[in-house]
Amino acid sequence: MSKKYVIIGGDAAGMSAASKIRRMQPESELVVFEKGQHISFAACGMPYWISGVIEDGSNLQVLTPEMAREKRDIDVRIGHEVTKIDASSKTIVVHKLSTGEDFVESYDALLIATGARAVVPPIPGVDSEGVFTLRSLADGHLIKNYIADHEIKHATIIGGGHIGLEMAEAYRHLNIDVTMVVRGDQIAPSMDKDLLEKLTEHVIENGVDLQLETRVSTIERTNNGLQVQTSAGLIKTDVVIVSTGIRPNSELAIEAGIEVGNSGAILIDEHMQTSVENIYAGGDCAEHNHRVLEESMWIPMATSANKGGRIAGENMAGANTRFPGILGTSVAKVFDYTVAQTGLTEKQAGQIENLSAIETTTITGGSRAHYYPGSKPLTIKLVVEKSSGRLLGAQMIGQADVAKRLDVLATAITAKMTVEDIGMLDLTYAPPVAPVYDPILVAANVANK
Amino acid sequence: MSKKYVIIGGDAAGMSAASKIRRMQPESELVVFEKGQHISFAACGMPYWISGVIEDGSNLQVLTPEMAREKRDIDVRIGHEVTKIDASSKTIVVHKLSTGEDFVESYDALLIATGARAVVPPIPGVDSEGVFTLRSLADGHLIKNYIADHEIKHATIIGGGHIGLEMAEAYRHLNIDVTMVVRGDQIAPSMDKDLLEKLTEHVIENGVDLQLETRVSTIERTNNGLQVQTSAGLIKTDVVIVSTGIRPNSELAIEAGIEVGNSGAILIDEHMQTSVENIYAGGDCAEHNHRVLEESMWIPMATSANKGGRIAGENMAGANTRFPGILGTSVAKVFDYTVAQTGLTEKQAGQIENLSAIETTTITGGSRAHYYPGSKPLTIKLVVEKSSGRLLGAQMIGQADVAKRLDVLATAITAKMTVEDIGMLDLTYAPPVAPVYDPILVAANVANK
Repeated sequence: MSKKYVIIGGDAAGMSAASKIRRMQPESELVVFEKGQHISFAACGMPYWISGVIEDGSNLQVLTPEMAREKRDIDVRIGHEVTKIDASSKTIVVHKLSTGEDFVESYDALLIATGARAVVPPIPGVDSEGVFTLRSLADGHLIKNYIADHEIKHATIIGGGHIGLEMAEAYRHLNIDVTMVVRGDQIAPSMDKDLLEKLTEHVIENGVDLQLETRVSTIERTNNGLQVQTSAGLIKTDVVIVSTGIRPNSELAIEAGIEVGNSGAILIDEHMQTSVENIYAGGDCAEHNHRVLEESMWIPMATSANKGGRIAGENMAGANTRFPGILGTSVAKVFDYTVAQTGLTEKQAGQIENLSAIETTTITGGSRAHYYPGSKPLTIKLVVEKSSGRLLGAQMIGQADVAKRLDVLATAITAKMTVEDIGMLDLTYAPPVAPVYDPILVAANVANK
Repeated sequence: MSKKYVIIGGDAAGMSAASKIRRMQPESELVVFEKGQHISFAACGMPYWISGVIEDGSNLQVLTPEMAREKRDIDVRIGHEVTKIDASSKTIVVHKLSTGEDFVESYDALLIATGARAVVPPIPGVDSEGVFTLRSLADGHLIKNYIADHEIKHATIIGGGHIGLEMAEAYRHLNIDVTMVVRGDQIAPSMDKDLLEKLTEHVIENGVDLQLETRVSTIERTNNGLQVQTSAGLIKTDVVIVSTGIRPNSELAIEAGIEVGNSGAILIDEHMQTSVENIYAGGDCAEHNHRVLEESMWIPMATSANKGGRIAGENMAGANTRFPGILGTSVAKVFDYTVAQTGLTEKQAGQIENLSAIETTTITGGSRAHYYPGSKPLTIKLVVEKSSGRLLGAQMIGQADVAKRLDVLATAITAKMTVEDIGMLDLTYAPPVAPVYDPILVAANVANK
């Protein structure tokens, strides 16, 4: 007898699982409940849609509920919020937003893929008109419409992470002046500060008024716009983006007695199963195994939501596959620069108890042979376990060919390679694509000394 | 007492070894004998210098004999040909070209780094004025000067390998018509033919008159240029490049009783030592361990000459380091395309006895998120061991971000990863740099099915 599969959340993890289950169990009952109006959309594309670099926003919609139903035979119910999980009776309570009706639905296997939400700090006035977060596709629409409907000359971005930086670029692309207010002493807080000097200069050169070590105290709506009061002064602005972080949507799981980690995100095993039988979790609401630390970490990413969701679906549908985990690999385009990282940073390593002693190496090399036109400098920082020479993490910044070069190091970390191993990799060389000693090899050889 | 080190050949392997020995043994006696007039030059840059893409040819000269002497304290003697090695007395005979004088030099440790030479097929008239090979820097100068001194409207290239293709691009860049004559049924003969359809079209679209399965019977110098008679007809042309392959310069080693492989190139162990004690070899005259086949192969590349030369120097100077070997990784820019490969092709695998059964997978994906402007298709072919799922080889063709993406797979092959492992790699994703499922992951997932 085929099982009944219920999935809470219709984004990357939920729809990856649903698609996999449908392929493996074509006759099974399968329902996806999604609180919002959209499923499976490319959140990472939103800054480029807001800026107009991506012209057709409908391309961000990977799947619509109709497509899911017609092409993949998946019963997706948007506007349905799951308000309770009862693991003992294997049922959930669903609230239908359009009618206010509540109903009970049973499951044989359940996936929690509720994602994460933007954290909004308790700043007075943060709920004013013209103040936005950017997390859901609905947020994207609100910002895009607000820019279209108002004369926006100046934008304020609170937070200097990837989304803040991408939105700064988006606004500058629209010829909107930008002030970025950051509480800490660096942009790109997931990276080591010592790598960021040129990137920070570049952001400023591109017209971003960068205010580091600055706190926002109030936001006020006036007759002609918004006023943001900070520890450094008053900013008159037309629109505010708050991008100060996200938090996992794990309350439903916690109330059902499912274990969560220190981050508050749901703990899962390598089969994506939670501490409660028949209940799986995936995507941004879950922690994943960090392949360097070999412990559970919350580093929400679209990539692990897609892969982990698929593995959750496989296991729910009766397979026995494992998700080996993550390295926290990430990348962002910041004007003409690309910044990328994988594994541990020096800063992270410093915060982890019982970690072996580490050493770091930073080098700058060219993206092409030095004599070939268009070679751009790129800087690589390696974090290496001192005793073994094993690579634990890598960061890379430059104006060309950064992302996939970083992926070579993500692959090397996954394989537990030492810097000696990496220095002997047989990598591509031709003057238009790399120097004979690729910067990766240079970094590894310097670290190996 | 410090040893006396002698190196035969002053290019990548020889000078890498010499530089390493000098750093490890600052007081030792160290001599490099180079038959030609140049040392350590970037041969792979020559097509771009001939085309004018690289303006300053002196940049191709990594080191001059003067720089080697002054900056690195290495005694380089150009115009000195070593004519004999006597391993029993640990001496060599050196012929000084400028004076005709022969002298005997002793060594404690000797490196043979004599490189390889172009193979010129015995075509009547192949020694005519205006017919060139492109291997040495002297060759590059001859071609560059010939183009400058003659009105060149049409060039003929015999051979369709990387150098032939790069020279075709160089000539087209100079607005010179090109006919390429290839004996076999494909260009880029080191790759699998089924991948090459778009590349072949692209070469033709860029104005190359491509004549496959065509043999050259004679070359004749006439009053107004050259005539190349082929099995397909007569080509009237102004300059001919013969790039039909190379052969290792191993005669000196063979006469000294040093073992060579089936290729005719010198056999070495993992310390770069030949079959004769105190005699090492490196660079294009030597075979190297192929890391997939775990047997000695001749795949001459600048990258292994540099790395292997360094390792040879370390071992000669008393260290105990090993060169793990090569994957035959290579890349070439061909007009707007980049073609890259690592490990085994399907064709190669078919020629190897006792190799486990293989399967291949070919997919085409985008270099960026499909909705982000500028995404270019790239095609990946994987060669996988059927029984284990282990990746044995990869080839990639596309118009963007090919080379370093291929290096991810070179790293995975080195780590003996299976396609299942590769499908779970945590690679960078952001719309401007990759789709959420990088084509690498797509290829691995398809191969894993």
